[in-house]
Amino acid sequence: MNHQPTLSDIHFILHEVLRAPASLQSLPNFAEVDADLMRQVLDEAGKFVGEVVAPLNRSGDEVGCQFSQGQVTTPPGFKEAYQAFWQAGWPALACAPEDGGQGLPTVLEAVLYEMLSAANHGWTMAPGLLHGAYECIKHHASDELKARYLEKIASGEWLATMCLTEPHAGSDLGLVSTRAVPQPDGSYQLSGTKIFISGGEHDLSENIVHLVLARLPDASPGPKGLSLFLVPKFLPDGTRSAVHCERIEEKMGLHGSATCVLRFDAATGWIVGVPGRGLNAMFVMMNAARLHVALQGMGLLEAAWQKAQAYAQERRQMRAPGRRTSAAQADLIIEHPAMRRILDTQRAWIDGGRVLAYTTALELDMVKHHPDAQRRATAERWCSLVTPVLKAAWTEQAFKGSSECLQVFGGHGYVREWGIEQIVRDSRVSMIYEGTNEIQAIDLLVRKVLADGGAGITSLLASLLSSEKNSNQPSDSLGSKVKTLTELTQQLVATSAADPTLAYWVADDYLRAVALTLLQWAWLRIQQARPDEAGTADAARWLNPAAALQHWILPEFAMRLSIIQARLG
Amino acid sequence: MNHQPTLSDIHFILHEVLRAPASLQSLPNFAEVDADLMRQVLDEAGKFVGEVVAPLNRSGDEVGCQFSQGQVTTPPGFKEAYQAFWQAGWPALACAPEDGGQGLPTVLEAVLYEMLSAANHGWTMAPGLLHGAYECIKHHASDELKARYLEKIASGEWLATMCLTEPHAGSDLGLVSTRAVPQPDGSYQLSGTKIFISGGEHDLSENIVHLVLARLPDASPGPKGLSLFLVPKFLPDGTRSAVHCERIEEKMGLHGSATCVLRFDAATGWIVGVPGRGLNAMFVMMNAARLHVALQGMGLLEAAWQKAQAYAQERRQMRAPGRRTSAAQADLIIEHPAMRRILDTQRAWIDGGRVLAYTTALELDMVKHHPDAQRRATAERWCSLVTPVLKAAWTEQAFKGSSECLQVFGGHGYVREWGIEQIVRDSRVSMIYEGTNEIQAIDLLVRKVLADGGAGITSLLASLLSSEKNSNQPSDSLGSKVKTLTELTQQLVATSAADPTLAYWVADDYLRAVALTLLQWAWLRIQQARPDEAGTADAARWLNPAAALQHWILPEFAMRLSIIQARLG
Repeated sequence: MNHQPTLSDIHFILHEVLRAPASLQSLPNFAEVDADLMRQVLDEAGKFVGEVVAPLNRSGDEVGCQFSQGQVTTPPGFKEAYQAFWQAGWPALACAPEDGGQGLPTVLEAVLYEMLSAANHGWTMAPGLLHGAYECIKHHASDELKARYLEKIASGEWLATMCLTEPHAGSDLGLVSTRAVPQPDGSYQLSGTKIFISGGEHDLSENIVHLVLARLPDASPGPKGLSLFLVPKFLPDGTRSAVHCERIEEKMGLHGSATCVLRFDAATGWIVGVPGRGLNAMFVMMNAARLHVALQGMGLLEAAWQKAQAYAQERRQMRAPGRRTSAAQADLIIEHPAMRRILDTQRAWIDGGRVLAYTTALELDMVKHHPDAQRRATAERWCSLVTPVLKAAWTEQAFKGSSECLQVFGGHGYVREWGIEQIVRDSRVSMIYEGTNEIQAIDLLVRKVLADGGAGITSLLASLLSSEKNSNQPSDSLGSKVKTLTELTQQLVATSAADPTLAYWVADDYLRAVALTLLQWAWLRIQQARPDEAGTADAARWLNPAAALQHWILPEFAMRLSIIQARLG
Repeated sequence: MNHQPTLSDIHFILHEVLRAPASLQSLPNFAEVDADLMRQVLDEAGKFVGEVVAPLNRSGDEVGCQFSQGQVTTPPGFKEAYQAFWQAGWPALACAPEDGGQGLPTVLEAVLYEMLSAANHGWTMAPGLLHGAYECIKHHASDELKARYLEKIASGEWLATMCLTEPHAGSDLGLVSTRAVPQPDGSYQLSGTKIFISGGEHDLSENIVHLVLARLPDASPGPKGLSLFLVPKFLPDGTRSAVHCERIEEKMGLHGSATCVLRFDAATGWIVGVPGRGLNAMFVMMNAARLHVALQGMGLLEAAWQKAQAYAQERRQMRAPGRRTSAAQADLIIEHPAMRRILDTQRAWIDGGRVLAYTTALELDMVKHHPDAQRRATAERWCSLVTPVLKAAWTEQAFKGSSECLQVFGGHGYVREWGIEQIVRDSRVSMIYEGTNEIQAIDLLVRKVLADGGAGITSLLASLLSSEKNSNQPSDSLGSKVKTLTELTQQLVATSAADPTLAYWVADDYLRAVALTLLQWAWLRIQQARPDEAGTADAARWLNPAAALQHWILPEFAMRLSIIQARLG
């Protein structure tokens, strides 16, 4: 069973819950973006995802990428699908019109990538890397480089990579040792080895543009000595550059994406941005990239949920409690409480996650395009604080929740047949890349919350309550969480001054507490958009996960609080 | 890096914490079993595990079992290792001397299988199935069958299977439809298809003895119509019987063990026990089998912890908070709080789990051999109530905890190189087989706790406190958990009378609450055995996980309680 996006759910959240078209139309750039256009774009995207990309998921896992003598062959059909994808204009969806893009909102790109990841995580890695490269080149490269590469990257005709990690330099980029030696013609020769390079070599596009962190000869050690370089697979004159794929990794999953070891052998490249500011050039795109990873998590969990839900509605196993009168020999799996709980719980994470991720994508549009500086600052604050939370909490849920969905299949879940175990394997990497989830937690608490004495998060939390207009909603509990978290933040600020290690011990718990608060807020927004739901035919569709949230997800908040408070003493 | 058992930890728990030799010597059968003998047996076992079984783990995963034309070829070295294993007498360790066994305590067998699973889960599946078959044949088969099969199974010269599951009959064995037709000579002809048969076909031993659930022609539908049959791969006259391996499953992990689809084509077999009592014959061995699966979980988690601990002590990455003065460019991974937390938390689960699992194995010895009926009944109660808790909680921890250990490696954890991702994949199945973890929870709460109105669990919980002799220990918190759980049990008993569905909604939470209570008890026993630990060189070895238990594991108790209480209303 190939994945098919459920567009009606996505439209409901974008239109009914978030009223996205109205927000977007307040921006001069998107005055033309109405509800019809948004629906039409996403319906088309969903069609492409379901018809072209999803059918390649299984063989992508089973055949995988093959390596031979420096060449990578992607699984059957991957190249044709990618060629169709970029030629249809999908990578350029949210790129600026002056770069050949369609100039549509980031939120549409976000939904596109959620659907793509759900259908085929491995394949999606390739175009997923374009958007960071586009932003990076657009904002930091010289006009000459832009003229040569920007449109090719915007359109997706050429694919791109991010070459950061080296053996012994993973989370800690300050240890990077690749060297870049300036040449008389203004180019550089790069030498060193990069590992874990997704799409470092493949046959999907005719050229590959590598963005490479390296150190100039006179650079200081540590992160401040790093500069960013553009190194193409094929040089402008058509010759092959000295970037060699030495091998691809054997991985737990994600076999449809080649994870390469790249050796730069005095490879020709050009500097992007200012010497010593390489990390800054990359950090520009980090919130967007991390949001993409959070969306991968949501997509993968959606794919797992769909499989498990379908299986549970079709297969019978044992008597469910209280159902002794059925004519069949056994009851549907979905009628068993433990299975119902698994399914509704994942649904609560997915739906609430979508509200938060799409909100964040809308806020990215505000950051880029809103005329009012103060509104841009609020949006910036939201993205900065919420993105690491989404990345960590929803990739964790993708892995744990898809494993729960696997459980619905019993022994059938452990075998390849139903495709659910692939999701568990594929999703695991999302907890690691683009900054491990532990680093997301430190990013949130240490680098963002404590850095401004808690001011930013306090304002953000307060804004969650002010947007609760409808006083009939049971928002008390959200109110008490906001109050608790605000006070807790102040305690952490005060205590951390004397004990700088403290925050590192409780960062994960703090991130979880924020995630649960945001999730509750998201569900209040869903419930506000469905005031009369009790009477409708599909009431259970939204009421069941809302109940699951209350019963099984939110109790973790008090536990996280108690863990942090015990540390505070 | 191949797994090596840490015998010193195991000896400490058996000898210092549990004082196992003294308990065992109180049994007439084990009067000769002293501390030296126990150490010697386990040291030898550890040697075999480390030298013979562990080195085959990686190729077992990578090469896997191969299927061709009804034959299964196990990975290179598996057959030789298995032949050495049974010839050295390891399968017969705890079998009765009259059956050719060594008559040693079950607890030694338990430790052996924990070590084997840690070293090579796939290989261990083969001998792991012998013990249930041995008990089953010993207690239920006719003298003629016993004469033909019991010693071969006891010694492990012939391997065995359990053929229960069929397509559409997994957790619900009542749906089994394989037919057994009596023949004039007293044998039966079995016809049907069984799936998920571990070791259903292989080249490890010269014969395979299948124990098969099937239905006599006149049997009633449902579980009470099932009988048990013995069907050998080779009949006593040397001819091949009509059991055919149709294929083996492609699985998420456990590639070293063939999971077979077996077709019985009027295959000759003999009844084991009484017609219609097939399930009873199998349930006899269920506690022992489930304990083995719990031990697999502990073994796999130990293996994952060892890998992650070694990596974290060797690799450097970023500055750890509060360590700005080191001469190196970065600090050891183990110095980072989030990583320390992962490692100490798993250690707390493993060490406490060992206390509980070894206690349970000792209680199984009491059940079998204690002269006093009342002591046997107490032991029976412990095994009955604690086994499903260990199976569910420790297999879940094996999967989640090994995934946490994977996180310690960063991106390196996701690739095959370090072997950690194999543990995550292999361990996942333990949450499913021998009764899914959800079924364990129902077994505990519905079939055991509620069935006697809570009397058994109440006595067991009380016994946890009475064994806390040393009033200096901080057992308050255990006392309050016992009190809370006892009251909660009474509430559940009372409420369930009117609402039989309730227990199914909270069974998982109840099991977790019991697991955490038992884990705390286990750690109090460890701490009692180390009264002067603060002064010793390796104090951190036990103090760190004890602290992890308090900080990060036990807070879940209150959360589970709140979830159950919300349901109770």
